[in-house]
Amino acid sequence: MMHPYVGEFVGTMLLLMLGNGVNANVSLPRTAGEGSGWIVISIGWGMSVFVAAWCVAEVSGAHLNPAVTVGLAAAGKFDWMMAPGYIAAQLLGAIAGAGIMYAMYRDHFHACDDPDTKLGVFCTAPCISSPLRNLFTEAVGTAMLILAILVVADPSIATPLDSSAPVGGGGEVKIGLGTLGVLRVGLLVVAIGLCLGGPTGYAINPARDLGPRIAHALLPIPGKRDANWSYSWVPVVGPLLGGVGAALAYLLLW
Amino acid sequence: MMHPYVGEFVGTMLLLMLGNGVNANVSLPRTAGEGSGWIVISIGWGMSVFVAAWCVAEVSGAHLNPAVTVGLAAAGKFDWMMAPGYIAAQLLGAIAGAGIMYAMYRDHFHACDDPDTKLGVFCTAPCISSPLRNLFTEAVGTAMLILAILVVADPSIATPLDSSAPVGGGGEVKIGLGTLGVLRVGLLVVAIGLCLGGPTGYAINPARDLGPRIAHALLPIPGKRDANWSYSWVPVVGPLLGGVGAALAYLLLW
Amino acid sequence: MMHPYVGEFVGTMLLLMLGNGVNANVSLPRTAGEGSGWIVISIGWGMSVFVAAWCVAEVSGAHLNPAVTVGLAAAGKFDWMMAPGYIAAQLLGAIAGAGIMYAMYRDHFHACDDPDTKLGVFCTAPCISSPLRNLFTEAVGTAMLILAILVVADPSIATPLDSSAPVGGGGEVKIGLGTLGVLRVGLLVVAIGLCLGGPTGYAINPARDLGPRIAHALLPIPGKRDANWSYSWVPVVGPLLGGVGAALAYLLLW
Amino acid sequence: MMHPYVGEFVGTMLLLMLGNGVNANVSLPRTAGEGSGWIVISIGWGMSVFVAAWCVAEVSGAHLNPAVTVGLAAAGKFDWMMAPGYIAAQLLGAIAGAGIMYAMYRDHFHACDDPDTKLGVFCTAPCISSPLRNLFTEAVGTAMLILAILVVADPSIATPLDSSAPVGGGGEVKIGLGTLGVLRVGLLVVAIGLCLGGPTGYAINPARDLGPRIAHALLPIPGKRDANWSYSWVPVVGPLLGGVGAALAYLLLW
Repeated sequence: MMHPYVGEFVGTMLLLMLGNGVNANVSLPRTAGEGSGWIVISIGWGMSVFVAAWCVAEVSGAHLNPAVTVGLAAAGKFDWMMAPGYIAAQLLGAIAGAGIMYAMYRDHFHACDDPDTKLGVFCTAPCISSPLRNLFTEAVGTAMLILAILVVADPSIATPLDSSAPVGGGGEVKIGLGTLGVLRVGLLVVAIGLCLGGPTGYAINPARDLGPRIAHALLPIPGKRDANWSYSWVPVVGPLLGGVGAALAYLLLW
Repeated sequence: MMHPYVGEFVGTMLLLMLGNGVNANVSLPRTAGEGSGWIVISIGWGMSVFVAAWCVAEVSGAHLNPAVTVGLAAAGKFDWMMAPGYIAAQLLGAIAGAGIMYAMYRDHFHACDDPDTKLGVFCTAPCISSPLRNLFTEAVGTAMLILAILVVADPSIATPLDSSAPVGGGGEVKIGLGTLGVLRVGLLVVAIGLCLGGPTGYAINPARDLGPRIAHALLPIPGKRDANWSYSWVPVVGPLLGGVGAALAYLLLW
Repeated sequence: MMHPYVGEFVGTMLLLMLGNGVNANVSLPRTAGEGSGWIVISIGWGMSVFVAAWCVAEVSGAHLNPAVTVGLAAAGKFDWMMAPGYIAAQLLGAIAGAGIMYAMYRDHFHACDDPDTKLGVFCTAPCISSPLRNLFTEAVGTAMLILAILVVADPSIATPLDSSAPVGGGGEVKIGLGTLGVLRVGLLVVAIGLCLGGPTGYAINPARDLGPRIAHALLPIPGKRDANWSYSWVPVVGPLLGGVGAALAYLLLW
Repeated sequence: MMHPYVGEFVGTMLLLMLGNGVNANVSLPRTAGEGSGWIVISIGWGMSVFVAAWCVAEVSGAHLNPAVTVGLAAAGKFDWMMAPGYIAAQLLGAIAGAGIMYAMYRDHFHACDDPDTKLGVFCTAPCISSPLRNLFTEAVGTAMLILAILVVADPSIATPLDSSAPVGGGGEVKIGLGTLGVLRVGLLVVAIGLCLGGPTGYAINPARDLGPRIAHALLPIPGKRDANWSYSWVPVVGPLLGGVGAALAYLLLW
């Protein structure tokens, strides 16, 4: 079985291939799902997390998100020494996943005239720009995610179907999601998207946002705009703050 | 682990942060989910209950609703002595959750010109005003909710995945939902919203309606209307009647 | 615990209260869910079956449908002697459930000018009238339903979470759905609605169609039309043929 | 219990009866679900897979897809000697299922004036024609499917609720999906449809595309066009390449 770092790379690649795919399907012209709206976006992302997490849950615990890695480490459920490797793998996986999505949807990018729409397939942007409030929104959404993951993955609370045995060998990786656990996290992401995604498009994951933003900058997309770097720190810092905040709340209260 | 009262506060706060969030996302202008309709509202609220209940199910049994607390107590499944504390915590949690939602969606409230829409993010209103019929509708929707919860949480009927061991210490709190139980209750709320939400917007929970109504009155929302206090008793009394009615039906028949 | 006949009455009443409710919410004017489309109808009916079945699964096996009762009896899984009582209870329950729905949505019936729409809340009608083809469509949809139920409720195939122990006392009632079983049947009904509901609106249940049709005839609905009795045999005979056909296929092949 | 080949015939017949049915419901005029969009298509196909797989999971392992059969065989989980029989049964079942769908929706085909729409009910077409990119898209979507199935059906990774005991007698058929396994695969197909279905309409299954294409050619559909044979190799070759690719990835990495 592959190394946990490889698992994080593969899992995050699958997550972005799928998740950026649903963005492309809904936003770009002449797709089968053009204009199919927020229900498709939200269920699409939630099921993307579900599928990607199930593929690597037993390999790496399926963090797929630096805010999960940092949140679990802050809660004492994950070894800080492995965090840099996890986060690097997640970021590289996200770039790769966005690239696969582009290879599939390239003709539809060519058919699209709006540079903002093309960028929006890759990464998030605020609906109304307000950096501190956008930061707060991303932090809250991510805190909801990490808090619920900490509860579902706690073997003293959840059942064996929710959380599997520790994975990764040598005991370094402490959190693993079981069969029902990955489904629950997928539905959790559906909930966050439907409810909290309105102001910023819910990155709630630094790798999910920064990786595709880098991919957008690197790829030869016709008629593309700049990657909106001035906003790029918000969906990185906000989720990390939310992850640490959730870990503290969990340690204090649960 | 936190006291059950704190659990009810936190759980109801999360419920309203999410549930009022989906209202804001669908109703307010310039959000990512603007105008995405009843399917988003109904799945959004159902998944909000699912997520909030899972976070505190083992702490307090995740009532999150005075009608649940009263219904369970009337059915002999919960200690009446703890009901006032539970209900107070739920109401305070609901106010807090609505406040967090407002902090995230504030710019979209500013972009909105319609005072009724702004109030409608927080609390319910009848589509056609008819107090006794609205009261009946809220009572029936809540009775459906409480009856199904009583069945799913009954250890002689449900499996261990549906209902967990009694929670809260000392045996006072008798009902706890397990892994499948919280998912089932989330889907139950989806069903009630889709099917019975048409006339009144389905409060089916006094705290869910009164808490955010108070928050709306307290918050400095620009261009807001009054909080429609003349209707406010309906989504409080109706659900309580429904909860007691469901408990009686359960005791008589199941 | 109540008698199985009472269980069938209560379960089918809840099913129609919810299912006719989603029809009203989508079809009638000025509801919260007005015009929200086929996804709401299909998920609404599927979750209605899920909720109604869970409430009485341990009481009566949750047939809620004469075609299920006849199909199970034809497959040797249910005592023919109890079938008349089951079917009568289902029909009466369906009438009662439609009545509760009407009491909730009455103001919206008053606001509606189209008699066909009002009838359509209660019972099905073919989109293109073609009795034999409509009969075939109802038979196929119901056969899909009954066949899948026979498989999921077969203890030699399914897990204990799918099918519970025989219910009803004395061994007369042989089929009971467990925790996952009721969820699976709910999703099965979502599938049938989405896929096979196009030509006839998928009654797939004689009680679901005939009961509310009788309720429509009895209730003092303003400006109502006749109950379209000339079509009423199709959603009764078609599902019964489908149920028997599924039982035969199951006995021959599984 | 029927022979595994019969199981594959029946299961794929049910899959296409349902899946082509949701296409007809959304695309053809005057159906109950006309114009209900991509969310209905994606959930409809996913739940079709769920239902069809559950009916025959214990009989044949519910491949229902030559790419699954080839992928499992390439991964050493299925006997190559049985692959021709499985694939032939799948193709014949798909033709039969499309025929049943046509018998139900025939009046709506008569009411439709657009030959492309009629063909589109049966089989896929690229939104923007680009054979190699379309091939790549189908390969990637199918690889996602097969990879996730390999993980969920691996008894060393999944729980007994995900993967059942080997089925088919004599040990030839090695992969069987359990209760949660079939639900997971249904949701996986929802995810693939929402996220990766945009460019080609996601055949991801040679039998699902070629079988109905043959049925379209054989059936006396009024005003039909040719079956677009020039594209027909793409949704056959692409999924097979994807299935083999997923098997290799699985063997190398998991």
